[in-house]
Amino acid sequence: MSSIKSIGVLTSGGDAPGMNAAIRAVVRACIYNDLRVFGVMRGYQGLIDNDIEELHSNSVSNIIQSGGTILKSARSMEFKTQEGREKAYDNLRKRDIDALVVIGGDGTFTGARIFGQEHNFPIVGIPGTIDNDLYGTDYTIGYDTALNTVVEAVDKIRDTATAHSRLFFIEVMGRDAGFLALRSGIASGAEAVLVPEVRTDFDQLEHFLQNGFKKNKTSSIVLVAEGDEIGGAIKIADKVGKEHPEYDVRVTILGHIQRGGSPSAFDRVSASRMGLSAVEALMDDQKSIMIGLANNQIVHTPFNQALKNKKALNPQLLEMTKILSI
Amino acid sequence: MSSIKSIGVLTSGGDAPGMNAAIRAVVRACIYNDLRVFGVMRGYQGLIDNDIEELHSNSVSNIIQSGGTILKSARSMEFKTQEGREKAYDNLRKRDIDALVVIGGDGTFTGARIFGQEHNFPIVGIPGTIDNDLYGTDYTIGYDTALNTVVEAVDKIRDTATAHSRLFFIEVMGRDAGFLALRSGIASGAEAVLVPEVRTDFDQLEHFLQNGFKKNKTSSIVLVAEGDEIGGAIKIADKVGKEHPEYDVRVTILGHIQRGGSPSAFDRVSASRMGLSAVEALMDDQKSIMIGLANNQIVHTPFNQALKNKKALNPQLLEMTKILSI
Amino acid sequence: MSSIKSIGVLTSGGDAPGMNAAIRAVVRACIYNDLRVFGVMRGYQGLIDNDIEELHSNSVSNIIQSGGTILKSARSMEFKTQEGREKAYDNLRKRDIDALVVIGGDGTFTGARIFGQEHNFPIVGIPGTIDNDLYGTDYTIGYDTALNTVVEAVDKIRDTATAHSRLFFIEVMGRDAGFLALRSGIASGAEAVLVPEVRTDFDQLEHFLQNGFKKNKTSSIVLVAEGDEIGGAIKIADKVGKEHPEYDVRVTILGHIQRGGSPSAFDRVSASRMGLSAVEALMDDQKSIMIGLANNQIVHTPFNQALKNKKALNPQLLEMTKILSI
Amino acid sequence: MSSIKSIGVLTSGGDAPGMNAAIRAVVRACIYNDLRVFGVMRGYQGLIDNDIEELHSNSVSNIIQSGGTILKSARSMEFKTQEGREKAYDNLRKRDIDALVVIGGDGTFTGARIFGQEHNFPIVGIPGTIDNDLYGTDYTIGYDTALNTVVEAVDKIRDTATAHSRLFFIEVMGRDAGFLALRSGIASGAEAVLVPEVRTDFDQLEHFLQNGFKKNKTSSIVLVAEGDEIGGAIKIADKVGKEHPEYDVRVTILGHIQRGGSPSAFDRVSASRMGLSAVEALMDDQKSIMIGLANNQIVHTPFNQALKNKKALNPQLLEMTKILSI
Repeated sequence: MSSIKSIGVLTSGGDAPGMNAAIRAVVRACIYNDLRVFGVMRGYQGLIDNDIEELHSNSVSNIIQSGGTILKSARSMEFKTQEGREKAYDNLRKRDIDALVVIGGDGTFTGARIFGQEHNFPIVGIPGTIDNDLYGTDYTIGYDTALNTVVEAVDKIRDTATAHSRLFFIEVMGRDAGFLALRSGIASGAEAVLVPEVRTDFDQLEHFLQNGFKKNKTSSIVLVAEGDEIGGAIKIADKVGKEHPEYDVRVTILGHIQRGGSPSAFDRVSASRMGLSAVEALMDDQKSIMIGLANNQIVHTPFNQALKNKKALNPQLLEMTKILSI
Repeated sequence: MSSIKSIGVLTSGGDAPGMNAAIRAVVRACIYNDLRVFGVMRGYQGLIDNDIEELHSNSVSNIIQSGGTILKSARSMEFKTQEGREKAYDNLRKRDIDALVVIGGDGTFTGARIFGQEHNFPIVGIPGTIDNDLYGTDYTIGYDTALNTVVEAVDKIRDTATAHSRLFFIEVMGRDAGFLALRSGIASGAEAVLVPEVRTDFDQLEHFLQNGFKKNKTSSIVLVAEGDEIGGAIKIADKVGKEHPEYDVRVTILGHIQRGGSPSAFDRVSASRMGLSAVEALMDDQKSIMIGLANNQIVHTPFNQALKNKKALNPQLLEMTKILSI
Repeated sequence: MSSIKSIGVLTSGGDAPGMNAAIRAVVRACIYNDLRVFGVMRGYQGLIDNDIEELHSNSVSNIIQSGGTILKSARSMEFKTQEGREKAYDNLRKRDIDALVVIGGDGTFTGARIFGQEHNFPIVGIPGTIDNDLYGTDYTIGYDTALNTVVEAVDKIRDTATAHSRLFFIEVMGRDAGFLALRSGIASGAEAVLVPEVRTDFDQLEHFLQNGFKKNKTSSIVLVAEGDEIGGAIKIADKVGKEHPEYDVRVTILGHIQRGGSPSAFDRVSASRMGLSAVEALMDDQKSIMIGLANNQIVHTPFNQALKNKKALNPQLLEMTKILSI
Repeated sequence: MSSIKSIGVLTSGGDAPGMNAAIRAVVRACIYNDLRVFGVMRGYQGLIDNDIEELHSNSVSNIIQSGGTILKSARSMEFKTQEGREKAYDNLRKRDIDALVVIGGDGTFTGARIFGQEHNFPIVGIPGTIDNDLYGTDYTIGYDTALNTVVEAVDKIRDTATAHSRLFFIEVMGRDAGFLALRSGIASGAEAVLVPEVRTDFDQLEHFLQNGFKKNKTSSIVLVAEGDEIGGAIKIADKVGKEHPEYDVRVTILGHIQRGGSPSAFDRVSASRMGLSAVEALMDDQKSIMIGLANNQIVHTPFNQALKNKKALNPQLLEMTKILSI
């Protein structure tokens, strides 16, 4: 039988829609299994500040549909110091919390890995980030919602782009990864997609622009991941505007709307499955792993592997934008 | 080199959001590969009536975001007769159409299988139905959109259920399959889910109702698949209302809103992938297969297999509703 | 100077989106004016049960976007008795609450009027109902949101209606009033609208059906207010289906989704204005009045007038459906 | 009897959701009254280029729910010259078009006024702009939809703002007018609103920022109209960020999503009413007027009056933001 009697849960790093669904599942799974469960506020900083309170079934009533995180999130500088982590550990000990579920991205798991090793403390991670850039899971919590948010925004911009026969460059989040740009580009019928992972996509864009104008497309949309190597949407639009005066060029940077909103059905189900599985993993004496969904099944990946490997874009999806915008 | 020079595409059976995205991908993939492509109106009936027209790249501009199907859909009695199918074949021959892509559900594929064998005619199917009840694919086109539509509707009903502390029975589509009810139940935080595949779930409901009332839940939502063996939502609500006068019971039947709406990002991407792959499969001399997505990869399943096997509900998801509504 | 030092606020009757925005405005206006403010739970029943708590500025943080009502709503049988109202009065006195703001429909104001006269107690009402059937205001809180909910639902059904060339009868709320049916009918491009206020509209429908079929409309949508005198949508669809076998007839009853959802911008602004004005009216020694918006200005109407007069449908809007569906 | 036998309709200037609903109403009203009706593409430029085609009832089927404009829009330099307008007039004469309905903003009406006087040609205008900055109507077509778009975006940003306790400056459209910023600010519960019409609002913001931080608000949202005199959101955020290092400041510029999207119920009804009324006004021999909605009634305002007067912000609404964000 497991030695775990009490679990803490926190959200850390950038927030993502569906985090509340994951918190709810962690809390309800604990109660179902007769474990106590504690909410830690503002990520690791709440551990240090002892900003922790016990949660009950109705603490998480009616939150599955809410964006953001009821536990709030923050980046903690203090937790990067050994001293800060000592304080955190002491607070956990004082409250007899035996294990942690941490919801976040790679920064969150880096902290978790160090803390877990330093104090031999069981931690299981749940991938929550709109960027979908975590190795060890096909989908991160929040990615599907952000995709839908981007696609709805591009649909709206398409209305006005078509009315005026304009060329729009739309910047979406993704400093190091083009997952969001690529899938939302396909889903919104974008004429081209620029992502950090591919160096040659600007040539394709150039080819398309010369071609598209000849075919007299009624509007053109190019999605740009903020981390693309030629620069963000504003830079690229300037360049294209100068070289192609025949286009009426506009820019929109979607910004923080991508982080919020009521989570999609997909994210709510994934978050609920991962939340349950995180508690089960801890009860099965697992530690220092990230829960993931691969091929629609729950899988475990050691933090170390999740952090040092890089998830690749699907090359078939990259190829598709070229064919579909013909 | 492939002998296919010209492809017809049609939608048949109940329409589903994302069918237009699939049509667009079929058309663009044909043009990209220098094939001619023809749209057949109103499913198999259009083949018989010779209601067919050539499509071009801009025939499918600005449709990726639209629900319904620009080719319209219908059920054709005439195509069930050999005579009807002869007419259909003659019309295809007259126009030099070498192969078909058919988008629909099991009725569609049954027709395709017979016609393909009878006339040795290459047909590839794309699964389009909100019910997700097709073997050979993890997701059918329209399922994810319908899930989001149901979840948004239940979120709205939850508002009023909570304001009045009511028990709602909400009926969702699914005559033979509980996929839609099950996932939307999890995603909307339903207290219980009744599906055709499980005979004992009413006992669980009974258990929950006795329990939930004691805990004084502020509202309770039960999702009922229309095909559940105890009857639809109205029947069950009547039964529960009589046995539990302590509950203020209401019913909503979501109905045809579940079939419409702008497709979700997920459905648009899946539909686009399947559309491209259907054309590629025909160019690779495949026939009598359904395109599917399994483990996020394109797979082929012979019509015969797709039709005679039954896809099972994920038992872990069934178990989850019990834990999460504690 | 006003003798009011402390105000109670409650919601009663059917809930409507925007009630929370009104509660928030009442609370903030009280605090801005150095009054204490108390939330009464579950309408008049909470007065009787002494289910009342003081509210603060952050009690109403982040609720402006939520459907339902944080104060919950209920219909109270006990408040219809003099004894019940005595208890309510005693509880108000014990807490030194000097006045009430009640948010609801005609049932709510009937209770308010009796209680106010019986105990010489200042009460101001805010019209909150999706039906828009209150005399003394152009718009009730929740009406605009419900309109948008209905229109989005009909847009979805239009997708599938068009794909199959069907005739849909869609039933919307409105037992005694056709406001919701009429405006949502115009906004969704319905081919006909049946409302309780007009006896002859079925003849127009009949005329349209004979005409529309000839013109081969691709789909037809008829909106039916639940209180229409020929019966609800199911009854009418049966009748039409029998008399017009050339139509493929379907029915959807929209039901309780019409009561929920995040309130529209319009409802949030109206609710905020009315909430502020209700507090100001009490501070100005007003009583037994309903706050309303007429010609975009705040107006006061005595409860008695609001209850005994009937608001009429705009005849120009009725005429419009005929012209626009040509 | 009116001498008008044939009407042209065009959209000009920035597009706005609901323009299609207005076009549909113009077309159907013409047909209902046995007039011919012609669509002019790309605003006044289409008159000059003779890019005009006859419209029928089903030309406007299924467009009431679409953003943008099926007639496309553009700004025409050539129409500003007498020569250009001569060409336009000749093309109208050749097609026997007797009158025009023009949908747009003040630039559109300026052109209409000159052309109408120069050629004694009957023109009626319909106000279509998300800015709501036209004198002679309480609401312009597109304003209500844009309000809802902004409010939904701010709701999403509020999720992430709250999760991280941040201060967001959100820039909305409105170069000369704060209507959009003001109403969306109230509806989204913004802590402050900065508009071009008010010079002192930055002091109020400063006051709030000092106060809000003390009260430890969980998040703060400030809406900035792009035309505010201290500069757009980026400039203001820089200033505030330097002076208040205690705030974690972020900026989002909503951009062109505000112009698109399916129109709200309110805009569809207003657009339909105005479209009908424009045709009726021409049949009643009116000219050089703008159709408007004042106090929920159709009113006529001479172009000259609509252009030279400025609509004022409602001072009560300005006052409200201060009270509601307490």
